[in-house]
Amino acid sequence: MSHNSFGHLFRLTTWGESHGPAIGAVVDGCPPGIALTEADIQPFLDKRRPGSSRHVSPRQESDRVRILSGVFDDGAGGGPVTTGAPVALMIGNEDVRSKDYEAIRDLWRPGHADYAYDAKYGLRDWRGGGRSSARETAMRVAAGAIARKVLGDGVVIRAALIQLGPRAIDRSRWDWDETANNAFFCPDAQTAAQWEADLDALRRDGSSTGAVVEVHASGVPAGWGAPVYGKLDADLAAAMMSIPAVKGVEIGAGFAAAAMRGEDAADEMRRGADGRPAFLSNHNGGVLGGISSGQDVVVRFAVKPTSSIRTERRTLNRKFEETAISTKGRHDPCVGIRAVPVGEAMMALTLADHMLRHRGQTGA
Amino acid sequence: MSHNSFGHLFRLTTWGESHGPAIGAVVDGCPPGIALTEADIQPFLDKRRPGSSRHVSPRQESDRVRILSGVFDDGAGGGPVTTGAPVALMIGNEDVRSKDYEAIRDLWRPGHADYAYDAKYGLRDWRGGGRSSARETAMRVAAGAIARKVLGDGVVIRAALIQLGPRAIDRSRWDWDETANNAFFCPDAQTAAQWEADLDALRRDGSSTGAVVEVHASGVPAGWGAPVYGKLDADLAAAMMSIPAVKGVEIGAGFAAAAMRGEDAADEMRRGADGRPAFLSNHNGGVLGGISSGQDVVVRFAVKPTSSIRTERRTLNRKFEETAISTKGRHDPCVGIRAVPVGEAMMALTLADHMLRHRGQTGA
Amino acid sequence: MSHNSFGHLFRLTTWGESHGPAIGAVVDGCPPGIALTEADIQPFLDKRRPGSSRHVSPRQESDRVRILSGVFDDGAGGGPVTTGAPVALMIGNEDVRSKDYEAIRDLWRPGHADYAYDAKYGLRDWRGGGRSSARETAMRVAAGAIARKVLGDGVVIRAALIQLGPRAIDRSRWDWDETANNAFFCPDAQTAAQWEADLDALRRDGSSTGAVVEVHASGVPAGWGAPVYGKLDADLAAAMMSIPAVKGVEIGAGFAAAAMRGEDAADEMRRGADGRPAFLSNHNGGVLGGISSGQDVVVRFAVKPTSSIRTERRTLNRKFEETAISTKGRHDPCVGIRAVPVGEAMMALTLADHMLRHRGQTGA
Amino acid sequence: MSHNSFGHLFRLTTWGESHGPAIGAVVDGCPPGIALTEADIQPFLDKRRPGSSRHVSPRQESDRVRILSGVFDDGAGGGPVTTGAPVALMIGNEDVRSKDYEAIRDLWRPGHADYAYDAKYGLRDWRGGGRSSARETAMRVAAGAIARKVLGDGVVIRAALIQLGPRAIDRSRWDWDETANNAFFCPDAQTAAQWEADLDALRRDGSSTGAVVEVHASGVPAGWGAPVYGKLDADLAAAMMSIPAVKGVEIGAGFAAAAMRGEDAADEMRRGADGRPAFLSNHNGGVLGGISSGQDVVVRFAVKPTSSIRTERRTLNRKFEETAISTKGRHDPCVGIRAVPVGEAMMALTLADHMLRHRGQTGA
Repeated sequence: MSHNSFGHLFRLTTWGESHGPAIGAVVDGCPPGIALTEADIQPFLDKRRPGSSRHVSPRQESDRVRILSGVFDDGAGGGPVTTGAPVALMIGNEDVRSKDYEAIRDLWRPGHADYAYDAKYGLRDWRGGGRSSARETAMRVAAGAIARKVLGDGVVIRAALIQLGPRAIDRSRWDWDETANNAFFCPDAQTAAQWEADLDALRRDGSSTGAVVEVHASGVPAGWGAPVYGKLDADLAAAMMSIPAVKGVEIGAGFAAAAMRGEDAADEMRRGADGRPAFLSNHNGGVLGGISSGQDVVVRFAVKPTSSIRTERRTLNRKFEETAISTKGRHDPCVGIRAVPVGEAMMALTLADHMLRHRGQTGA
Repeated sequence: MSHNSFGHLFRLTTWGESHGPAIGAVVDGCPPGIALTEADIQPFLDKRRPGSSRHVSPRQESDRVRILSGVFDDGAGGGPVTTGAPVALMIGNEDVRSKDYEAIRDLWRPGHADYAYDAKYGLRDWRGGGRSSARETAMRVAAGAIARKVLGDGVVIRAALIQLGPRAIDRSRWDWDETANNAFFCPDAQTAAQWEADLDALRRDGSSTGAVVEVHASGVPAGWGAPVYGKLDADLAAAMMSIPAVKGVEIGAGFAAAAMRGEDAADEMRRGADGRPAFLSNHNGGVLGGISSGQDVVVRFAVKPTSSIRTERRTLNRKFEETAISTKGRHDPCVGIRAVPVGEAMMALTLADHMLRHRGQTGA
Repeated sequence: MSHNSFGHLFRLTTWGESHGPAIGAVVDGCPPGIALTEADIQPFLDKRRPGSSRHVSPRQESDRVRILSGVFDDGAGGGPVTTGAPVALMIGNEDVRSKDYEAIRDLWRPGHADYAYDAKYGLRDWRGGGRSSARETAMRVAAGAIARKVLGDGVVIRAALIQLGPRAIDRSRWDWDETANNAFFCPDAQTAAQWEADLDALRRDGSSTGAVVEVHASGVPAGWGAPVYGKLDADLAAAMMSIPAVKGVEIGAGFAAAAMRGEDAADEMRRGADGRPAFLSNHNGGVLGGISSGQDVVVRFAVKPTSSIRTERRTLNRKFEETAISTKGRHDPCVGIRAVPVGEAMMALTLADHMLRHRGQTGA
Repeated sequence: MSHNSFGHLFRLTTWGESHGPAIGAVVDGCPPGIALTEADIQPFLDKRRPGSSRHVSPRQESDRVRILSGVFDDGAGGGPVTTGAPVALMIGNEDVRSKDYEAIRDLWRPGHADYAYDAKYGLRDWRGGGRSSARETAMRVAAGAIARKVLGDGVVIRAALIQLGPRAIDRSRWDWDETANNAFFCPDAQTAAQWEADLDALRRDGSSTGAVVEVHASGVPAGWGAPVYGKLDADLAAAMMSIPAVKGVEIGAGFAAAAMRGEDAADEMRRGADGRPAFLSNHNGGVLGGISSGQDVVVRFAVKPTSSIRTERRTLNRKFEETAISTKGRHDPCVGIRAVPVGEAMMALTLADHMLRHRGQTGA
């Protein structure tokens, strides 16, 4: 019910504004006995961190996470482990320039949450977007790192940027290793090179563009999920749609399924070498009837262009007077890039919750 | 947490299997004093009912709903109204031919939930799909009718089929009234006529096809929804993805937003004649930062082709032996058609919940 | 969040009014593969049923429960088992005499929920108490029978009436077997005999009295429960306080603990013959820090006297005019008696939920 | 579902251990526009703070709370107000002497959560009780201060210690003002003086004692609460039972109701001077059928004696070997005293949640 919590048995609650003193999270329901230190979390934050290339926001945040509770080192040499109590995480906000935002305190930036927050709450924290800022996603990434430890090494979660603006990758060149070699988490080196040029042009124009992210989870056993309203894919859809700027989510074949015939959409089954089912295709994205099938869980989501652009756009101020705005500030020309590690985190959080829920109901 | 419940303050719980004695629902949290009889619900069920045209399943279900609790007629002549107590709904299952399913009791139908249910629970009710059957959606539609009464006449929810197989409508011909004139809820008469032929061919082939449904809610005030994990669009994504066979969900521009530039994606604001904001476009689908903006809320979802087809597909039986299956039974060649009223219902349920949540937090 | 649901992983939702067509329940989250038929439930309902002795309401209800979903008999001879889908239960209301209540439709009966319901909802179903009737507890008892099957034979749940009006049992004569030999579920035969006379006198006076119920659960392993707000004893307190007419709940020593010194209250630990901890007392009622200790879980609750009595009491009508009321109807002179099986059911429901929650978080 | 969260629409999540770097809380669902600074919270923390008299623990904690999010000062001079976003609170732990606890790292202290935590999680943070420490209650008190602001000045919440060990107050001498004049929050000056002597003797003996706390909320309008499982009194019972060391909870007449006759227990109604119902007694503690009646909400709870005493008690170590323990450390001889502000806080939190839930469902 809580507006700022995600999950049920493995449950994340986040707090904090873009320009407040800090942002934080509470991870409740974590199984006990899992080795956990800041070093397990930091690498994932570093992937998402602004200032890492010219293609993302130059805001300088070291994003050093602190674990404030829920772990204990008994001194026996094994290092800290989770205790089953809530794990509190906190990151200080450092490079805060609220001054940059004074110009927009009485304006509603088109495409941003400004007007909606004012309409709902009667006021808003206009410094850096306040609660609606994508800075909140740092805590998703941090919590996602814990979720990965809960899932264990058997479940591998990876994401890639597969489209930037109108230009999509060539899937025949997909190479997961390549995602570490460019600033876009792009699995296709050739396309990545073109995106460099595309983004440089956009940045010169003071414009921005959208993107598509694809997330895979392999090693998910068959049986996670639940019928009807607790479906794994329904929870994944909510998880991804809750990421700022996301406008669409697909599982497996997604919208392409609408144009298919039944013969083609069926994921036929054969007996694999290991005696387990071997599916001949994965149009269902690893989920059947809301429950994992043992295939890779495959989710895609579309991110809209950054709303903060230099080109002037027409808008209203808080007195409902007509005016216009062009944003300076320090913004990502394509927020989809930094959404890649966030998508991975949301996959990890959703799966960890369903792993515990499945174990609770069935004992498996 | 409950796997078979949807919503928080306005909360639906459903139960029942395709071939059990009945299906039912409990709607908890309904505001008191709302006039409600079976006659308010039945028309929506009739829209979804099988057997209504040659293009949907010939299963004969009268789908007469009974209200078993939560309403009270004090005899003063105003008729029954809700009391604030849970409203229980029930529909008997009539035209049940479990015999049709005996052939598949030990098989896993490709694309169906059969294997996943067996993997999760160690058994499954194979009669008509059991709990995973789309028959459950009748209760969504019934509960959605109550949600509409909670929302009141100011909020108008309508849906249409906008693509059937590879053939999409021409949006320039969109006419809401037309959706009542054809068997497809199609807003474009010309395309509807082509779909007639398309579906007749598919049926002759014993095949099936996917579809895309678009749902609009107008009259939603600005301010419903919540930040971060309680976003209106995140809840809508889960709502739509929880409908059987849905593989993708979009809000506003959806996946098309990925290819846009920031200048085009911004929904610029002007002052309307009524003094309220008038947006010059609706790429955000009526939701900004997870909160309604006062524009129409626009959601689309993709439905995969019916998995039950006459063409033989390869699969395994419960002993993991390789075999094949072709389905006879009575099936919709395009389940997307009957998903139209279901999409409307999920929109109504999501909005009613957020209306009450917003009122709870803010008093508005 | 739902007002009419109890539990999280093992979750009960009930519906129905005293004089509506039926009452019902949905049990969601039940583990699969548990043998379950109506015959597993009926004996517990029979214990609670009105009309079973002259000391309880003469209302004639056969209270035959029907299972409408969530079980499946694959025909292999093992009989029906749970499938993991929601189990829907229903009991028809038979001996409904709403006429008896017409006199009170515009009055607020002192001690009843009448005024509070009117104040909250602006109306109330006055027939037999509507939703606030203790008839709802039949569904708790039915669901409790399923919870017992989830817990398995290792967990034994029993309750007894230990005080009726001012007269308490002599605990030195406690004999569980005796609870089956009298109309009061009294473990002390001598006191039971005195209660016969006490109640006959009360009934002659048209009066009523309160009672205290004690519930034991043995065989609960150490480790169920959770810190802080998910404490096993906090959930038990809510469970028992939610039973109609309950005004107090104790765990272990309860209020007597207030007068104790630390030396006496400590439940000292020795090593038992089985190598497990053997506690030398159970002042903590089997719960330490909100988590079960392996000792018997012991809960007591106080039930107020039935509010419906023949003696005239002063009250108001719905126009806020002063008036008076004396109730005829068919009422239990001591609702505490029939609360005994309800207390057992609430213990079973709470434990089953915590068993699954514990298993979810820890895998145990 | 979350083990460390309380409430639904107004929702508190706490984290932190007694000897970790800090403890904290997240308050989600707070209505917007409420003036809030640390100065609104600090006085309540000061009431609960250790070291304030010789009768409570000498641990030195300044307990300075920081608000880290969810408030915003727009610079217009009105000061910070809530924004509707989560309010994060944090208090650093200062006077931590984990060394004091090394002796008990491998022991289970009788009456403490030690054994139960080890049984559940396989390990425990033994420093100062870790997560099971009553230090967590500081965050309840802090969040309770926010809940009071949500409730507004019309709802007045006060608590008093009414029994310490075997000695109860004389209710005829009840004077709320007196609670500010002694170290016990005692409303009866004469009894408070006797308690001084009682506690001095207990401290000399190295012993401890239990207590009873009574909490009143006046000004609660009729209509808050909900039927069946969302009852206001059920939620209050859980709220109070979740406070460390609490073993019993009563509403209104509580256990005394068991000995009453119906004529005496009925809270008769007359028309008050204001036209509203005036009840002639309050045996129901302001709650009828789970819903507030407009009378004062009255709750009592019993606190067991502090388990940490100097007298040696028999116990086991983690190898299940028999041993004994006597606790030095810095402990309250009667934890019931500092439970008084905690009881007030839990009342405020429960009422604020129900206020929002009632508003959500009914619009009132």
